[in-house]
Amino acid sequence: MEGIARQRILPLETLSRLPVYRQKLRQLREDGVDTVSSLELAKQLGVGDAQLRRDLSYLRLLGRPGRGYGVRHLEEGITRALGLDRRWPLAIVGCGSLGTALARYEGYARDNLVVTAIFDIDPAKVGKKVRSVTVSHIDEAPRVIAETGVELAVIAVPSSAAQHVADAMVRAGVTALLNFAPVALAVPAGVIVRQMDISAELQILAHLKIVENG
Amino acid sequence: MEGIARQRILPLETLSRLPVYRQKLRQLREDGVDTVSSLELAKQLGVGDAQLRRDLSYLRLLGRPGRGYGVRHLEEGITRALGLDRRWPLAIVGCGSLGTALARYEGYARDNLVVTAIFDIDPAKVGKKVRSVTVSHIDEAPRVIAETGVELAVIAVPSSAAQHVADAMVRAGVTALLNFAPVALAVPAGVIVRQMDISAELQILAHLKIVENG
Repeated sequence: MEGIARQRILPLETLSRLPVYRQKLRQLREDGVDTVSSLELAKQLGVGDAQLRRDLSYLRLLGRPGRGYGVRHLEEGITRALGLDRRWPLAIVGCGSLGTALARYEGYARDNLVVTAIFDIDPAKVGKKVRSVTVSHIDEAPRVIAETGVELAVIAVPSSAAQHVADAMVRAGVTALLNFAPVALAVPAGVIVRQMDISAELQILAHLKIVENG
Repeated sequence: MEGIARQRILPLETLSRLPVYRQKLRQLREDGVDTVSSLELAKQLGVGDAQLRRDLSYLRLLGRPGRGYGVRHLEEGITRALGLDRRWPLAIVGCGSLGTALARYEGYARDNLVVTAIFDIDPAKVGKKVRSVTVSHIDEAPRVIAETGVELAVIAVPSSAAQHVADAMVRAGVTALLNFAPVALAVPAGVIVRQMDISAELQILAHLKIVENG
């Protein structure tokens, strides 16, 4: 059952909201809240009640009439649906200021994400440690990735190097990439790329500000 | 007409795609391409043809039957719709490794975004320069923001300080925030917050990897 639920294809919009729901539920649990109605949870999340219930129904997570959702049950259900009920070894590629910030980020453990590899090409950086992880040369990627079981890679290199880095990661067997460089990456079928585009977010923000504030 | 088109409320999903369209159009223009069919553009963008045409129709950008879209016309139309046909002064709050990386980012100019202020609370950082911008103490925010015309602020501080910083920005008159701290910010009505959540992106990536690769 669990395997089936996990492998259902969720609408991307639903999927995008799950980490937000999960964070709110964690916070409620830490505040000692045991149950929550969909109405109250939706209100706290700033989403529609119907949307919340629809999103959760994709995961087969149902509230009990008159009692609402169990907070812990819901949090665990979302964690399982996302696949975060097991460890995810992670590589950071690029050890400039952004890559270093990403390697030092403290929020991963909470989500079962573990930085097990950091790559760069600069001889001055290779061999140094960021937290407890030694920076490796990108040419060592196939070995280091195999040894540390990396499954996700974060690309934090200049735009001009991003495609080269993506190719190297794919060759080393990594099939899921989070790309901070503002370029569209070409990857083989079966490789997943998500884009973190700071500039795009600022463009959206600028537009919303005009609409809201005139 | 232009003002009307700009102030129409776009569906958020359409809005989220516009920066990606814009980047592809810029690239085509730089490659010397003058016109492009919606079919070809959709293919290059990896989106559906119908969706692309619908998105562009919101901006009243129409192709010519048999000739397709003018690349430059389309790029300029999207730039105008986003509101990027004028300068957007930007503040970075937090001058740790992430904030420094954000302050040094070279892609802003292309989008008419200009970092005009950087804030921190650390006396060791205040007064230093990142690129050509001097780091100010956050207590100086009202003056610096007024003087440099800041309209957008990027929050790159630890979670524990994010709400405090958001409050300070709002008090100083900034009504559009891009938040990198993994916490939900409480802001008054009329203030826009967009969340950059690295951990959420990695959670989505982990899920997609399970669905794709088993």
